[in-house]
Amino acid sequence: MNKDKLELLKNWEFKYSAYGLTLNTCYFDDETIAPKNGQDYRYARLAFMAGERHKIATDPEVGKLLKELKDDDLDEVNKRKVSLLIKNFEDMSKIPQKEFEEYTALTLKSSAVWQEAKKRADYSLFAPYLADLIAYQKRFAAYRNPQIAPYDVLLDDYEEGMTMADYDQFFELLKKEIVPLLHDVQKAKAIDDSFLYLYYPRQKQLLLMEKIKDVLGFDASWGYMGESMHPFTCGFSQDDVRVTNAYDEHNIAAAIYSLVHEVGHAYYEHQIDKDYAGTVLKNVSSGMHESQSRLLENYIGRRKKFIASFYPELVKIFPENLGDVSLEAFWAAVNVAKPSLIRTDADELTYPLHILIRYEIEKRLFNGELDTKDLNKAWNAYYKEYLGIEVPDDARGILQDIHWSQGDFGYFPTYALGSAVAAQIVHKMAEDIDIDDSIDSHISKITDYLGKHIQHYGALYPLQELLEKTSGEKFNPQYYIDYLKTKYRKLYNLD
Amino acid sequence: MNKDKLELLKNWEFKYSAYGLTLNTCYFDDETIAPKNGQDYRYARLAFMAGERHKIATDPEVGKLLKELKDDDLDEVNKRKVSLLIKNFEDMSKIPQKEFEEYTALTLKSSAVWQEAKKRADYSLFAPYLADLIAYQKRFAAYRNPQIAPYDVLLDDYEEGMTMADYDQFFELLKKEIVPLLHDVQKAKAIDDSFLYLYYPRQKQLLLMEKIKDVLGFDASWGYMGESMHPFTCGFSQDDVRVTNAYDEHNIAAAIYSLVHEVGHAYYEHQIDKDYAGTVLKNVSSGMHESQSRLLENYIGRRKKFIASFYPELVKIFPENLGDVSLEAFWAAVNVAKPSLIRTDADELTYPLHILIRYEIEKRLFNGELDTKDLNKAWNAYYKEYLGIEVPDDARGILQDIHWSQGDFGYFPTYALGSAVAAQIVHKMAEDIDIDDSIDSHISKITDYLGKHIQHYGALYPLQELLEKTSGEKFNPQYYIDYLKTKYRKLYNLD
Repeated sequence: MNKDKLELLKNWEFKYSAYGLTLNTCYFDDETIAPKNGQDYRYARLAFMAGERHKIATDPEVGKLLKELKDDDLDEVNKRKVSLLIKNFEDMSKIPQKEFEEYTALTLKSSAVWQEAKKRADYSLFAPYLADLIAYQKRFAAYRNPQIAPYDVLLDDYEEGMTMADYDQFFELLKKEIVPLLHDVQKAKAIDDSFLYLYYPRQKQLLLMEKIKDVLGFDASWGYMGESMHPFTCGFSQDDVRVTNAYDEHNIAAAIYSLVHEVGHAYYEHQIDKDYAGTVLKNVSSGMHESQSRLLENYIGRRKKFIASFYPELVKIFPENLGDVSLEAFWAAVNVAKPSLIRTDADELTYPLHILIRYEIEKRLFNGELDTKDLNKAWNAYYKEYLGIEVPDDARGILQDIHWSQGDFGYFPTYALGSAVAAQIVHKMAEDIDIDDSIDSHISKITDYLGKHIQHYGALYPLQELLEKTSGEKFNPQYYIDYLKTKYRKLYNLD
Repeated sequence: MNKDKLELLKNWEFKYSAYGLTLNTCYFDDETIAPKNGQDYRYARLAFMAGERHKIATDPEVGKLLKELKDDDLDEVNKRKVSLLIKNFEDMSKIPQKEFEEYTALTLKSSAVWQEAKKRADYSLFAPYLADLIAYQKRFAAYRNPQIAPYDVLLDDYEEGMTMADYDQFFELLKKEIVPLLHDVQKAKAIDDSFLYLYYPRQKQLLLMEKIKDVLGFDASWGYMGESMHPFTCGFSQDDVRVTNAYDEHNIAAAIYSLVHEVGHAYYEHQIDKDYAGTVLKNVSSGMHESQSRLLENYIGRRKKFIASFYPELVKIFPENLGDVSLEAFWAAVNVAKPSLIRTDADELTYPLHILIRYEIEKRLFNGELDTKDLNKAWNAYYKEYLGIEVPDDARGILQDIHWSQGDFGYFPTYALGSAVAAQIVHKMAEDIDIDDSIDSHISKITDYLGKHIQHYGALYPLQELLEKTSGEKFNPQYYIDYLKTKYRKLYNLD
């Protein structure tokens, strides 16, 4: 009986994942290569297909099945699955099909408008879409859980169990520790990083990416690298993971660290237990996911040993820019900390301040203290206050990130959380293996370690439980603070 | 009442086209970029989704609606739509859902196996899949129309109204006229084309393609060019058309003429009446479609005037290969006629003989005179007989084409038909506009002409009717024979 019910669940999972695969393939296509003039035709149909998937997600039959399974005696894996699916089912069922389709069409259109607005550096084009997106999300949150604040509903979507109270505390600590450290760094002798911003033609950057993909072990048998305005990762299945990159011809570090970051995400998707393919256990929370991308990008990718793995190739491709630059100097340059405009290009020290700003804005948008109208002005004021810099235009200001255009609110805070979680995991990893020794022409010892201790589990455990299992301790941001202090005090000779 | 029914039909068309768009996007993805190891996961789900679409195609409700509409007083467009849809509905409904899904999974798997077999030049890997594909197609043809020969059922799928009797007659004429002409050409003084087969690196070929896309007016607003083992075209909507190309580093003409060919197809998709978007009237028959790709490739693309539009750029990109080669010499080289191994690279004169071979083999596979086992030997014997050449391996023999691996039988003959139809259309076009005068830095006068007189109509008329409408005459292969005779007798100074 129990077995029959699990078989029914499996059939439902297969069907739902089939719709998911086709839709996600179309989204990837749309973000990377799809001709622009085909948007109206495409978006109308993709919204319809999202509705078809929504119907499957909210099929009363599966609701009934899940409720029955909940009372059964299940093993750990199925128990977790059922619990996550019940939450999804209840959340989705409360949103009317028609509104869901309208909302999907809106997100597709909004992303396109955002691209155009960013190109023209004109927030006013995007503002009405942002207002609509927020209105939908507020309404959906109220449908789903009218008892708690809408923004808390969203925060929980991206990281199970996290609330404004938790993030307030976390960001307070960061502000308290990072802002003075940044001030010390700004007073220290500057490190030269001017050579990073010379002319690096896209075509040649692509050659370098091939080398870095080799070092990372990101190969065509399971991974594909495309190009999009904003780098992202999509895991269709464990052996079919897509990343994208973007090329700034006047910033060589941007594409390098975007690639390492996205491949960090890609490994997560790749190394989740194969038995979880096409199931809800593949939906890893954002904070955990970001811990692995940040870990690869910063805690591995910015080490001298890692840079050494591709530096000779880099110099060979760009001798005119880097012929006279030592490995030591390049390494120092990609670790420079200074306030800047673009989150994705930010250094490790200022990065959490970029997130703090987004968190503050989102919180205030959802509690009504801020409005989408003239939000670019509020954005610019925050950058002045926390990072001490002037935002020259909307493209490098409020329009820099894709997230809001896709309706993702409550997502950003997990980026800072992920960085902090990564510090805790690296601290444990360093007890188990010699990290520098594990970096050579490849880093498989590191990716294997992460696969075994973290990624393998997929969404089987919530963040706190997984951290306890892996590092013997619940989430502790002190590792992050200690890491940043040690790293930057040393780099800038502050002691 | 009538209006309500047409509204219902419209809704059904929208739904069916939404499933079609997502599936086609996935097929395009699979042929171009999808990581190989993800195939099992992907194919299982794509087969399921093809089954979902099949359910919509065979929904008894739409069958009933179509039958009712058939008896209504409809305008020309809806009348044709309903008639085509009834045929599709009846064909599809006769194939059991489960067999259809199995067959879809088989075609996906077969394409992958074909790729691998081609890489290894080993037909034996592919042979069992080919046998299965033929068995399915024979069975399906018997379900659909047990009265007529299975191969005739398939021929009609690709070109409405065409039968073995028609093709036998057509190919007899070609054989009678082309074989002696080819013998004369072979006895004439050879034209030097050795410079076409020097080393042309893929990266540099890509630069040239950008220039040719410019001349053709194939731009990113409505078109995308990807890469795949076998070039093809996919029209998702009028303003979203994808082509692929393939690069042989020792054959510069291959990628040039594949691109022009596929863009010929792309224009058809692009210029079909926008009102037909997402409807059955977008499904142009293979022969008509091929007439437009061949027209651009051969009747325009191989003219001196067209080559002149990109030749300076070509020489600039490959000065080491072409610095000493005149436009005249390059033009003559890409028009050389000589027996060769690969259909897609074949010249205009030997091309129909490649098709003739495939037609003979398919006919005999379906009437039981030939078996898939050791079919590579039969293939090689045909190439010896008709083209006088030895096939060195299966990759350059029976495995060269993707079609059979996708279950496409009865498709090849439309390629020769298309070439002949193109000759008839060009003959008429030359009466209406000066073709050479219409070729400059772009060819919009030509593509506009084709849009207006041919492509605009989509599938509104069957081939014979459309030809009569456009050229004032039913299909007449004599234009093709005359064209080939005139062209090659002049090129090789045979008179």
